[in-house]
Formats: sequence, structure tokens, C-alpha cells
Amino acid sequence: MSIAQPARASQSHPLMSWSGWGDPNRAAALPEGLHQLVRDALDVREGRPAPATIDQLELSPVRLPDQTRDGLSAIVGAGQARADHEVRARHAVGKSTIDLLRLRAGGPIAAPDLVLTPGSHEEVLAVLELCSVRGVAVVPFGGGTSVVGGLTPEAERFTGVVALDVGRLDELIELDEESRLAVLGPGLRGPEAEALLVARGYTIGHFPQSFEYASLGGFAAARSSGQASAGYGRFDDLVLGLRLATPTGTLTLGRAPKSAAGPDLRQLVLGSEGAFGVITSLTVAIRPAPERRLYGGYAFPTFSAGAAALRGLAQDGPTPTILRLSDEAETALNLARPGQIGAGDQAGGCLAIVGFEGSAEDVAARQAVSAHRLTRADATPVPGAGDAWAAGRYHAPYLRDSLLQAGALVETLETVSFWSSLHALHRAVGEALRESLGALGTPPVVLCHISHVYPAGASLYFTVVCAQLEEPVAQWQTAKRAAGEAILGTGGSITHHHGVGTDHRELYEREIGPLAVAALRAVKQTLDPDGILNPGILLSPGGETPSRTSHETSPDQ
Amino acid sequence: MSIAQPARASQSHPLMSWSGWGDPNRAAALPEGLHQLVRDALDVREGRPAPATIDQLELSPVRLPDQTRDGLSAIVGAGQARADHEVRARHAVGKSTIDLLRLRAGGPIAAPDLVLTPGSHEEVLAVLELCSVRGVAVVPFGGGTSVVGGLTPEAERFTGVVALDVGRLDELIELDEESRLAVLGPGLRGPEAEALLVARGYTIGHFPQSFEYASLGGFAAARSSGQASAGYGRFDDLVLGLRLATPTGTLTLGRAPKSAAGPDLRQLVLGSEGAFGVITSLTVAIRPAPERRLYGGYAFPTFSAGAAALRGLAQDGPTPTILRLSDEAETALNLARPGQIGAGDQAGGCLAIVGFEGSAEDVAARQAVSAHRLTRADATPVPGAGDAWAAGRYHAPYLRDSLLQAGALVETLETVSFWSSLHALHRAVGEALRESLGALGTPPVVLCHISHVYPAGASLYFTVVCAQLEEPVAQWQTAKRAAGEAILGTGGSITHHHGVGTDHRELYEREIGPLAVAALRAVKQTLDPDGILNPGILLSPGGETPSRTSHETSPDQ
Repeated sequence: MSIAQPARASQSHPLMSWSGWGDPNRAAALPEGLHQLVRDALDVREGRPAPATIDQLELSPVRLPDQTRDGLSAIVGAGQARADHEVRARHAVGKSTIDLLRLRAGGPIAAPDLVLTPGSHEEVLAVLELCSVRGVAVVPFGGGTSVVGGLTPEAERFTGVVALDVGRLDELIELDEESRLAVLGPGLRGPEAEALLVARGYTIGHFPQSFEYASLGGFAAARSSGQASAGYGRFDDLVLGLRLATPTGTLTLGRAPKSAAGPDLRQLVLGSEGAFGVITSLTVAIRPAPERRLYGGYAFPTFSAGAAALRGLAQDGPTPTILRLSDEAETALNLARPGQIGAGDQAGGCLAIVGFEGSAEDVAARQAVSAHRLTRADATPVPGAGDAWAAGRYHAPYLRDSLLQAGALVETLETVSFWSSLHALHRAVGEALRESLGALGTPPVVLCHISHVYPAGASLYFTVVCAQLEEPVAQWQTAKRAAGEAILGTGGSITHHHGVGTDHRELYEREIGPLAVAALRAVKQTLDPDGILNPGILLSPGGETPSRTSHETSPDQ
Repeated sequence: MSIAQPARASQSHPLMSWSGWGDPNRAAALPEGLHQLVRDALDVREGRPAPATIDQLELSPVRLPDQTRDGLSAIVGAGQARADHEVRARHAVGKSTIDLLRLRAGGPIAAPDLVLTPGSHEEVLAVLELCSVRGVAVVPFGGGTSVVGGLTPEAERFTGVVALDVGRLDELIELDEESRLAVLGPGLRGPEAEALLVARGYTIGHFPQSFEYASLGGFAAARSSGQASAGYGRFDDLVLGLRLATPTGTLTLGRAPKSAAGPDLRQLVLGSEGAFGVITSLTVAIRPAPERRLYGGYAFPTFSAGAAALRGLAQDGPTPTILRLSDEAETALNLARPGQIGAGDQAGGCLAIVGFEGSAEDVAARQAVSAHRLTRADATPVPGAGDAWAAGRYHAPYLRDSLLQAGALVETLETVSFWSSLHALHRAVGEALRESLGALGTPPVVLCHISHVYPAGASLYFTVVCAQLEEPVAQWQTAKRAAGEAILGTGGSITHHHGVGTDHRELYEREIGPLAVAALRAVKQTLDPDGILNPGILLSPGGETPSRTSHETSPDQ
């Protein structure tokens, strides 16, 4: 394998709004169309107070014993172990609407006692070993963009909580052009990894909505799927190998692209969400950076006609790089074109975005055949829609902040099923959201699109907007539970690309069943016998047998 | 999901030669080219005696207590529990050269005490439960084609061994044309499954060399890869869901094509080789049966030129359905065209087979672009070579029987690596085989081809022929160990598509490392706490903690 000089991300990681999404300088005023929606359709008359400042946020008191803190600092170096208010606040929660509502309300927030930024695999191993001995819970931290409670452990039985921020593991370690793979640090954010690779002529092709802030480690740990998954594959398809630091040692997986040597253990670590170990490097498939990008829009008369056409492309090809289809309600609100939301120039019917990336020749060939097939399936081209989608593709989370401020409750959820169940799933989830929120007196607007396609099925991505009640956290939890029951009841999976975290844990355990849960617990018990890693995330807490109770062995009790 | 009337394979499963491969009526005389090789290059002057009859084969005595036998018979029905000499002999070993040498020598062979053919998932569960209580080892049996010792457990500590033949689980259970998937019984042999699907317009597209006799359950359990994997995918890519009967209950996996709900547990069962449970149904991706098949041949001046061209197609497309490349030695012997072996009309250089299956339009388009790229990469078309390969694609195992009879030792082995390691792997394995067998006084002919390609790497399939020594089993084990060390030493995986079994177990455990082995053991302990399933296959035996010792609980001791 050819080895490049390790190259590091060129600047410090971008700092995100502590109480919302993204770059505070890009915060968006509420577009008039959404303002009308909030006022007229949702009957919201009053906005919400602006969030307090980060200094005013109430955090849980630090409880980590000094001796443990000093021991951990000695491993990573003093400058890499911080416990100041701001760094604790910034590592306390993710970016779900529930997280943001709690932050905006000023807390109280359970925050980690200490934030560590180790600089090597060996330092991660040493941190995990000491935390096991001292009974300290460890929360791996990448970009901090979890929307399923993936950063909020249930850590009462531990002597403290440490956030293990992998941000310093941000190198391009190796580039193997012959095998089209790169070995990369888990702390690289999406744009940083792309910049390192594009400079050398390559791309990973993984562009989820969280792309600008999320990390490669998080993409892997939570089985992320990007907007271009139809062309480049999901992130779990792209991971050829990885190194995992666990409290009991190192797992190195992926000697070859495919093998018949036993179960594929890469697929056991992908999706383990930090509960089995900390990913310290990733071997990822790369492709030549595309010579050409072409994004088009098509209007279908109905959602079912559009879904059938997308299915045709996914099953018989040519597969576009990007393929999504808004339902009638989402099309009417123009959600696929954030720059024009509610602008009234929507195409009508159901808008599909069909994008191609690759060599000029390849893009032209696929586009021509796709266009032919789509128009034969009753689709009408919508000029400009593809470029409008591309311009706004990372913008929706900014709109959420504006909507919350305006007094609306807004959140998204997603699921996946085989094609033959997809329409039943679409109906059932929509009805569950309308009924549950309607019963609370806040009838919602429910929008949906097909966000990812496979030959055998597709994912559905829902956006829900309604008026905020006095207790918006409880309000959303009620709706979310109803949606989750509808998903399980119609054969969907509880998450297609956001992960399990704490929010989906209970329904996830029902989805896979007790024997599968027991098998995962057995793996966790082997790799993390003291259960320090992300307790309560992915799996309910307390299943491990503490082999060494920290209260007896830790000298600083 | 649309539900078809369950349809069963139309005739009884084909009966294979008990001491060799395949249909005894298709046994092949040694082609003159191979006869010359054996006589002139390997200096073999005398053939071997024909194998004894199956009646003369010496089997281990039956040791299963009568009461256990009766209990198991009661579960499956008396006609489905057999212990006669022939049925025991036919379920005792697989089809590796070592297996065949032992059978040809007349034994002794460790055979199962009882062969069960359960008719339902529930019967399998009941069998596993009773065997757990009584301390009986269980060997799942599909087509019986393992070439890695996958049917020969280490069962000394058990009260007996039962072969659990899934042959009666041979139905097409559901056909979901919208989602392009079929639910199929694990006992269906390759041609039976294809016949059921082709009658309805579909194919799985999985055609390994063992296709005519191997079962779907075996394809899944051992991560089989077929000759058309470039186009249709490996079998583990095609399994969308499965049901697993274990001693502790049922695992049902695969609610959706892809999901972010935790680790992909399908990938934990695929490759588990019967050590975690018995697959009782499979949900498999299907495609329209191809309208057109087109197989071509090309000669490259060197193996490295050919490998680079194959890599180009795998990475940049268009990907053929079938893609293989013989090295110089294999091309010289014409192994890719078994009908013309040693016939002297070989093309010279290195022969590639490039095949396309699909719609007429799709085949024509891919073929045209591929042909252009291949000729630009110095390849010369070899008329007739593609059809000759297709005609002989399942024939090589018959030749092995003829070679063994003629006094040659012949066996195959395979591995996989990233492209950047492939040539080093090719050299190292060839040298290890030549050196180890040369040192025994039997210098071999070593042939190799690239058998499967991926964007990131490829597999290498070696065929070794030399003169048989008096102890050919020990002779091959020496060579095989040397090849295995060379594989691990140059970064390959110990198996790309044959599985681990008993033969690869030790090197497999070294390949994945002790922590990965411990994680797999923990899963096994959870699903099979008494360790009855395939002891010694995949994982070394004795790692489980017998929770209920059969000697205390079984009344028939």
C-alpha cells in the first residue's frame, strides 16, 4: 500500500452555534413562506424568547474525583484535558430538537465532567483502561451532531463522565490509489476529509445533511447515509477497514475488500455507536473526484407514480448519483428548494431531484437514459429545481432554528422498508403524527420525501411542523412515540440513517428482539466489561457485569 | 409483501458420488493433456487403486444413546431420522481433496450417529433444544460440498453427533416482485432455486463452481461467491434477511434492505458456518432472468497487464457480469477451457473471460465499452474462449477425481487482498507451494486465476497438481500450511469464498486476532450455551461454558 506523508486538516474544526445549528453567521431569518405557515396554518401568534448565553446555561456540577482527572490529564497532556464551562457545554448534547429546546431553555443540562482530546490510538487505549479501573463513563465525541441522544449517557452509577473528543485524530494517514482507498482519522469533519482528498483528485462522495459539521468517526459509528448514496453508497458500504480502541484492547478489521473468513466484523462495529469502542482510524473507499455534476428536477403527478419511477431506476438502472422524491405536501411547501420555500412557484404534484456525478461521458450517458425513462413514466422536467436543491442542500437545519424561535415545533424522523411496504409506511407514520399532535391541540403539517433508494426498498424522511406547547419536549416525545409505533407496526426499521442513541433504544430493542439484544450485550461485555462506553446508548444500561467495581478499586473515593 | 403459493423443488435432490464429485454418470476420463502432465511433468508412473464401495467404508461406531435417538426421531418423524450405513457415510465429510483421499482409502471415517431431516423451523428448534439438554453435537448439512472440513466436528466431549440435513426445507416461500426478493428454504440446491425462480421470470445470479450440488443455506453460512459475482454480487450481498434457529430461540433479521438500527446482524450470521444456529429461511435479492448471455475471451500479454485491465473495469466500469483472468501457467494448461485442457491451442499470454448477462440492450452497451477498453489495454480477442469456459464452468471437480485416480495430488485454495498487495500475494503463495512440495520431492505445477473483482481488490484462486506420496493427506497439509502462512504474511485473507471450517480455523483465529475471537465466542455462548453446534468448526472447540452438563441431566447415560 502506497503511503502518503500523513496530511492534517488545514485549520481548526469549525465551531458550531452552541444552541442551534451551524455557523452563527449563516443563521437564517424565517422565509416569508414559512412565516405564513407558522402564523396561518399553525396559528402561532407569539415567538419564543431568544436563548440565553452559553455562560448562563446551567450545567450539572463536576463530580469526577481530582485524582482521576489528573490521571487522565497525564495521559493526554494537560492542554488536552479541559473542564471549563464552555467546553463542557459544547460537549453535553447533540443537535436534536429536544437537545436544542433544552439548551434554549437554559438547562439544566447533564454535561461531561472532563473533555479529553487524545492525540493517538495509544492515548485512547490508555484513557479507556484508566476509566475502566476508575469507573468513569466515556462518551466518544466526533462532530457532536447526533439527533438521537447519542451524546447523553445514563451514567448515574459511574464516578463521572468523560467526553472523548477525537477531533485531533484528523489526518489523512495513507492514500492507496491503486486500491482506491484512503486511511483517515475519525475526527475529520466532512469538508476537511473532502478537501484532503480532492487536493489529490479523489472524493469519498458522502454528503449527508450534517456534512459540514459531522465527523467520519460519527458517520461510521452511526451508519450514516448521504444524499448521494444512490451513486456512492452508504457510509457503511464505503468502510473497508477500521481500528477500534476498546477497554480490553485493539480490534483491527478489514484485511481485504471482501472475505469468507467468518462473520464480517466490520459490520458489527459499524452501527455500534461508541458502545463497543472508539474508532481511531478508518479505511474508506474513494473515487476520482467528479468531472461533472448535473442536478435536475422532475414533477410527477402523484407520489406513487414517482415512487414507481424511482424504483425502476434503482432496480434496472441507470442509477443516478442522487435520487429523492418529495410527496405532495412537501412539494407544495417547496422544501426541496429551501431558497424558494413557500414562494408559490412550486411545480405541483411531486418533485423529484435526480442528480449525476462522474466523468462527463458517464454523466451524459446516465442522464440521457434516465431522462428518457422518467418522461416515459409521466414526469415533467422542472427547470432550475435541481440547482436550487443543490444550493440549499445543507440549509434545512438553519431553518429549524428560525422556526423554533418563531414558536413552532419542528423535527424530522426517518425510516426504511422494502418497496412493497413503503406506501403503507408513508400513510401510517403520517397518520400517527397527525393524530398524536392533533390530540394535543397542535395539528401538524407533515411533509415527507424518499431520501435514499435501493433495489429492494427505500427510506422515508419526514418533517413535522406544529405549534409549540408550553412543554415542547414532552409534546414531541408523544408524537415521536406514536410515529415509532407506526413504523414498527408497518414493517419499517426505526432508523435508516440517524442511529439509535437513547431516543430509539427502546423501540430498537423491540425491533431486533431479545436474543439479538443478548448477543450484542455479550459482545459489549467482552470488549467493555465494565460498561463504561456510552452507557444507555444503543443498549439499555446495566446489562454488563461490572467485573471490577470502581468503588473498591479506585483510590480516590 | 405479495405471497406466492409456496412451491417446492420438483424432484428429490441429486445424489452425488459418495467418494468424489458430482453425478457418477458424468465422471470424466483424464484428458490426454492432463495425462501427459501427470506422466511427463510430475513423473507419475502408476495410478491408484479405485475406491472401495460405500459398503466397505469403515465408519465410527454409533454411540448415540437409544433414548436420545428415539426422542429426536419423535420430533422429526421416524422416516426422517436415519442411521443406516449409507446415509451416515453420505453425511460424514465434505468434498475437499483430503476428504476424498480418506474416503478412497476406505476410512476410518468419523460419521454422524444419526441423520435428521426436519420439515420445519419449529422442528429444528426442538432438535436443538433436545440436543442441548442431552449434550449431542449438531452438524447442519446442506449440500455437503464443504472443502474446508466444515462437516467434521470435534465432538469427543459430546454424547453423540447428529447431522441436521435441511434438505426438506426446500420451498420458494414468498415472491415479492415489487421489492425484487424471494424467501427461500435453505435446503434448495442451486439449480432447484434457479428453476423455481426462472419459471417466474427471475434469477438469483449465484453460480459458484459447486452450484449444481451446494445449497442456499450453505451459500449463506459460508459466504459463497459465484462466478458471476462481478455482476450479481456475492451471496452475502444478496441476503436481505434470514431466520436462524438456535438452541436459545429464533433470530429473525432483515426488516429492510439497509438500516442504521445498530450493527448489521445479518453480517454476523453470514459466515458463521452453522456455529451460531441453523438458517431455516433466507430472503434473497432477485433480478429478472437475463434475456441475453454473452461470454468472450481476451488474451493479455502478461498477468500484470491483464490484472490492471480488470481493475480498470471493476473501478470505472462498465462492470462485466463475469470477469476472470488466468495467469501464464493456467493459460498454458488451458484450465479456463476444460474441454480443451492441454490441447495445445492455448492463446498464449494470459486468458481473461469477460461475460455479460442482462437485457439485450444492456449487454450490448456494456460489451461494446468493455471491448474498447480491453483492446486499448493490449488485449486480443480469443474467439470461442468465452463459450468454451461457459460449457466447462462446473467441470473442474470431475477432473480432480480423474487426477487423484491417476496418482496425482490436486487441490485448490483461494485468497483475497487489496489490489496493491495482489501481485506480492500471487508470488508468495506460488513460491510457498513450490518450495514446500518441492522439499517433499514432489515439485508441483501451480496455476492461478483472478476469480472475483472489487473496486478495492480481487481474489486469487490457485490450483496445485503434483505427484501423490504414500501419505497424501499429510503431504497436502504441509503444502497448505505453507500457503496459509504466505497468505497471512502478505496481507491476504485466509479465504475469499470457501469459508473457515476446521481446515482454516487456526490461521483464521490468527487473522482476526484474540479480541475478535473472544467477541465471536461471546456470541456463540449466548446463542449456543452448550456449544453443541459445529464444535471445532469456525472456532476452536471448548470455549463455551457448558451450562447444563449432559451427564447430569440426561436420563439415558
